[in-house]
Amino acid sequence: METDFIYLDHAAATPVDSRVLVAMQPYFSEQFYNPSSPYSPAILVRRKYEEAKHSLAQNIGAKPDEIVMTAGATESINLAFGSISGHVVVPNIEHHAVLSAAKTHDHTIVAADARGMISVEVLKEAITPQTQLVSVALANNELGTVQPLRDIAQLVKQTRQERLALGDSTPIYLHTDASQGIGQVDCNVARLGVDMMTMNAGKIYGPKQVGLLWAASHVSLSPQIVGGGQERGLRSGTENVAGTVGFAKALDLACEHRKYESERLQELRNSLQHKLTSAFPEAVVSGSPKHRLAGHLHISFPNLDAERMVFALEGRNVLVATGSACAANKGTRSHVLTAIGLVPEVADGSLRLTLGHLSDKENINLAAEIIIEEVKREYARTAR
Amino acid sequence: METDFIYLDHAAATPVDSRVLVAMQPYFSEQFYNPSSPYSPAILVRRKYEEAKHSLAQNIGAKPDEIVMTAGATESINLAFGSISGHVVVPNIEHHAVLSAAKTHDHTIVAADARGMISVEVLKEAITPQTQLVSVALANNELGTVQPLRDIAQLVKQTRQERLALGDSTPIYLHTDASQGIGQVDCNVARLGVDMMTMNAGKIYGPKQVGLLWAASHVSLSPQIVGGGQERGLRSGTENVAGTVGFAKALDLACEHRKYESERLQELRNSLQHKLTSAFPEAVVSGSPKHRLAGHLHISFPNLDAERMVFALEGRNVLVATGSACAANKGTRSHVLTAIGLVPEVADGSLRLTLGHLSDKENINLAAEIIIEEVKREYARTAR
Repeated sequence: METDFIYLDHAAATPVDSRVLVAMQPYFSEQFYNPSSPYSPAILVRRKYEEAKHSLAQNIGAKPDEIVMTAGATESINLAFGSISGHVVVPNIEHHAVLSAAKTHDHTIVAADARGMISVEVLKEAITPQTQLVSVALANNELGTVQPLRDIAQLVKQTRQERLALGDSTPIYLHTDASQGIGQVDCNVARLGVDMMTMNAGKIYGPKQVGLLWAASHVSLSPQIVGGGQERGLRSGTENVAGTVGFAKALDLACEHRKYESERLQELRNSLQHKLTSAFPEAVVSGSPKHRLAGHLHISFPNLDAERMVFALEGRNVLVATGSACAANKGTRSHVLTAIGLVPEVADGSLRLTLGHLSDKENINLAAEIIIEEVKREYARTAR
Repeated sequence: METDFIYLDHAAATPVDSRVLVAMQPYFSEQFYNPSSPYSPAILVRRKYEEAKHSLAQNIGAKPDEIVMTAGATESINLAFGSISGHVVVPNIEHHAVLSAAKTHDHTIVAADARGMISVEVLKEAITPQTQLVSVALANNELGTVQPLRDIAQLVKQTRQERLALGDSTPIYLHTDASQGIGQVDCNVARLGVDMMTMNAGKIYGPKQVGLLWAASHVSLSPQIVGGGQERGLRSGTENVAGTVGFAKALDLACEHRKYESERLQELRNSLQHKLTSAFPEAVVSGSPKHRLAGHLHISFPNLDAERMVFALEGRNVLVATGSACAANKGTRSHVLTAIGLVPEVADGSLRLTLGHLSDKENINLAAEIIIEEVKREYARTAR
């Protein structure tokens, strides 16, 4: 039954790739041993676990011992923020996980521009002598805007150097939540210039509730979960061997096919965008046209009720989102759309269409037709 | 290859039951949707997730909205302790997860007796007017001793009532780490009388890194991981649907077969114990003979090097532990054995043999023979 759906919500969740599932499978059954047990079948499991972490590290240009495995992006973000005592700076379009973590600190929330981009100047203004963390998502989960992390990293580095020159040892780090964007943009930590990076398997065709926090060796993390001392004492609990092996396989595939897949998705997305904006010249496409994830299309149909549209489209077997999934079932207007200044009558008519592995030319063409029909029908119904 | 092993370390890890894996499988692939998404295939996933929580709750005699899903027992324990601000009391034989969490508070560590039992009197002595939490494992992970939780619950309840009678509203709760023992002893929270209970799928033939904290409605939990507001705001992050469904199936099976399986394991364990103690009258069986998990046998061969024995037995395809797996690969003497007063020459010759689904009459008889041969060989080698 499910294969009949045209899934346009890859930013909310992705199916586990069959190759990922195959890689995970043995660690549920034959290789179920506790990686801390002393006999050789368990030591083999430990080795496979360490190999998976090595592979994860390699794919982001990091060292394996700079990685802490977690139960997903939210925990990683909490671990990053929990390791900081001072002031933090975050943009107003960040995911709730980042905004909530920021609110446990003295914090400044800075404004994105109308395209959902974060400027270095705005961040610079917000940094105080007490600021210890700047956190900016690699790509926004609603708009798909890809942020200028390298420039932001330059700002953070410069601030650090200025402090050191003044004999001030207050640290300042740049963290990025890279939950969205892996597999579509470069995630090499050295090239991005970040000090900490959160990643998530569930958005890249890996298992849910598997994530990691990468922290450069100069960052001192404080464990949030204490106990048996796993993950170098930074995150205790019997290791998720199957999940970590699956994450490693998923990241491997994402990196291997990144160039091809980004180009493929961009072409499909552009075609979808062209069809929708041609049919509805009044539609508003949000996010940066230039710096945007290849598979992301955020489009608003003024005066349309997007929630009704989600259900109408579902009736036609097209699955789309109105906003980020976390906030979606709370009936509140997206904080991101408010932040970029969309007026309510535009914001409330917004669909987030995110393409991915399940998208192809045929189903995207069909989706475009169906969306056009349903939007027309709804506009007709409300007799604009 | 793995099927050749006789696995006697069920307390460290268990293979995922094939029925559990079958139950989990759809939520990796066809039913991969984010449970917070608004369209009906995702709502169906949300419903399955809630049904799994309902089943978990039902099997412990609790309400579904008293359960917080976590990434395993260690996180659950940290969530329980993190919700408390005052003094805590824990026994000296608790798992490292509990001891580490206790050490983040003003704490008193009380002594177990020589059988590894915790007495109500000792706990009573340790409770101060500031005590807000008493935490005692349902069953000890090394010795298998099952604690008198109902009596301890009575003490905690009485303390609470005495405080209330004096107009003192300082709360006091009883938490139990039930990671060991599910499927062998009754885990009904009302009958146990506890206020909070930690459970873990990985020890009951469910997936690793899946756990829960049950907290009675009068307990106010403080979230350790903030973000999208999942689990009633108490533990954010996209839900582990597959893991939770697997945990529910595993607990269901554990509860359904508890009586039969406990009797079966007890018979096998008693036979193993009889054979080993008959061959080595000087061997010391630790833990309470009466209040002990059915599948647990902790046996010490004085002046034997247990670590050598683990490797010798592995060479004969018998997998055993020297202590709890978390501490096993750190080369330190078990804190539990020190706590119950085993002298070093006895403690260092200790094997923990834990039986479970993979145990049967044939392989336990064979294991007994092999252990006897190898212990004799080692005693001969060291020319006692």
